[in-house]
Amino acid sequence: MADLKGDERLDFLLAEENMRIIQSPTVFAFSLDAVLLANFTYVPLNKGKIIDLCTGNGVIPLLLSRKSNVPIIGVEIQARLYDMAIRNVKVNKLETQLKMIHGDLKDMPARFGNDKFDLVTVNPPYFKTPNKREQNKNDFLTIARHEIHCTLEEVVIACSKLAKSGGKVSMVHRPNRLVEILSLFQKYKIEPKRMRLVYPKVGKEANTLLIEGVRDGSPDLKILPPLYAFDENGNYSSELEEILYGNNK
Amino acid sequence: MADLKGDERLDFLLAEENMRIIQSPTVFAFSLDAVLLANFTYVPLNKGKIIDLCTGNGVIPLLLSRKSNVPIIGVEIQARLYDMAIRNVKVNKLETQLKMIHGDLKDMPARFGNDKFDLVTVNPPYFKTPNKREQNKNDFLTIARHEIHCTLEEVVIACSKLAKSGGKVSMVHRPNRLVEILSLFQKYKIEPKRMRLVYPKVGKEANTLLIEGVRDGSPDLKILPPLYAFDENGNYSSELEEILYGNNK
Repeated sequence: MADLKGDERLDFLLAEENMRIIQSPTVFAFSLDAVLLANFTYVPLNKGKIIDLCTGNGVIPLLLSRKSNVPIIGVEIQARLYDMAIRNVKVNKLETQLKMIHGDLKDMPARFGNDKFDLVTVNPPYFKTPNKREQNKNDFLTIARHEIHCTLEEVVIACSKLAKSGGKVSMVHRPNRLVEILSLFQKYKIEPKRMRLVYPKVGKEANTLLIEGVRDGSPDLKILPPLYAFDENGNYSSELEEILYGNNK
Repeated sequence: MADLKGDERLDFLLAEENMRIIQSPTVFAFSLDAVLLANFTYVPLNKGKIIDLCTGNGVIPLLLSRKSNVPIIGVEIQARLYDMAIRNVKVNKLETQLKMIHGDLKDMPARFGNDKFDLVTVNPPYFKTPNKREQNKNDFLTIARHEIHCTLEEVVIACSKLAKSGGKVSMVHRPNRLVEILSLFQKYKIEPKRMRLVYPKVGKEANTLLIEGVRDGSPDLKILPPLYAFDENGNYSSELEEILYGNNK
């Protein structure tokens, strides 16, 4: 059924009984963070358009297609990942709703024009790139994880331009970048409105940050209840299990 | 023993068996937020100096005196509250460690000079003052709660000037001001390093923000485990009970 290459696998996409996803341990496999972002974000139901930057193998557009009827565009700079993403659209027969673009997020405002999207989602590279040694040696993963093709500021600029006035921008990142993220959101007119912190378990520091802003919104940040990933026995918390597997467990 | 005025009471100061605190329901009673800040903040043990701005009846200096041997100065602009604060020092026989000043926090850098304190703590007014109607009608409480004598920016400027390079600034505030607080901290060279969110109970949004920065520090924010105030039955959570009453329960 699916056209698999190299060590790619055709996996089930979590709670989505009828969805499959092509991924590979060496090239790209979707992360928990992408699933958390798809769960956290506001989603327009029937009107408007969504764009997902740094889409990888397209996992966020696939997940959002279950919650929304609007057109969803995914953008990926790496040809090998884009190639997985278009096959993921095909294998799930979502060609009418989902479109994948092989390109640089920095070029998207010029391509689509400013103020076009009701929602921009992004799971950007988390790490600055101070020197070559600290980078992951696998090129695919290095590019996905390190700010090689785009800095955080370039990501926020693209989000700001692409979002309509009143449109949402949702991002997943690391808590140690919070100060910078809030500062860049404000600099580019994305007012932070909702934030959720994810903790690996009770008693530990937060390791994931979910943040949503509104283009040209007024200041009023709400901090949602914390999400714990694991319980004291090292099993998924009941909330995370619900996010991952829903009622199909 | 204590010199009480009007409806003032001489209360026990929580876990501190041997401490008393003068307060009044109509003039000023210390809040949970002050206790949380005293619990959250870094405290120099034997070297340096501490200054507490917006000290009210001096509750934070009283609490910190149990954790530190260094001199602690409290600053309060309201004469009536300053008067309670000096009597609180006296009733607890802490005159050698604690000093209360009746003055405006904005004047303290000129009074003490810049770069003088190892720790600046502050529980500032939380509310902007858009119009007279929204203000609390009790003048004492209005001034304590609304930005009448100082804006958040003026508070941060004073903190920044008073703290040594490498010194800490600890603040308690509301989460909906987080974006502004982080932005002001950065603007005035106080790098946010530790943050803790307090939730009234499981499943609710955060209602209190504890944040600590380092003057001239390098960027690296840690977000500590959440603190819940109440359990599902409406009783203090065990962690809050420990903070409030320690082992004296």
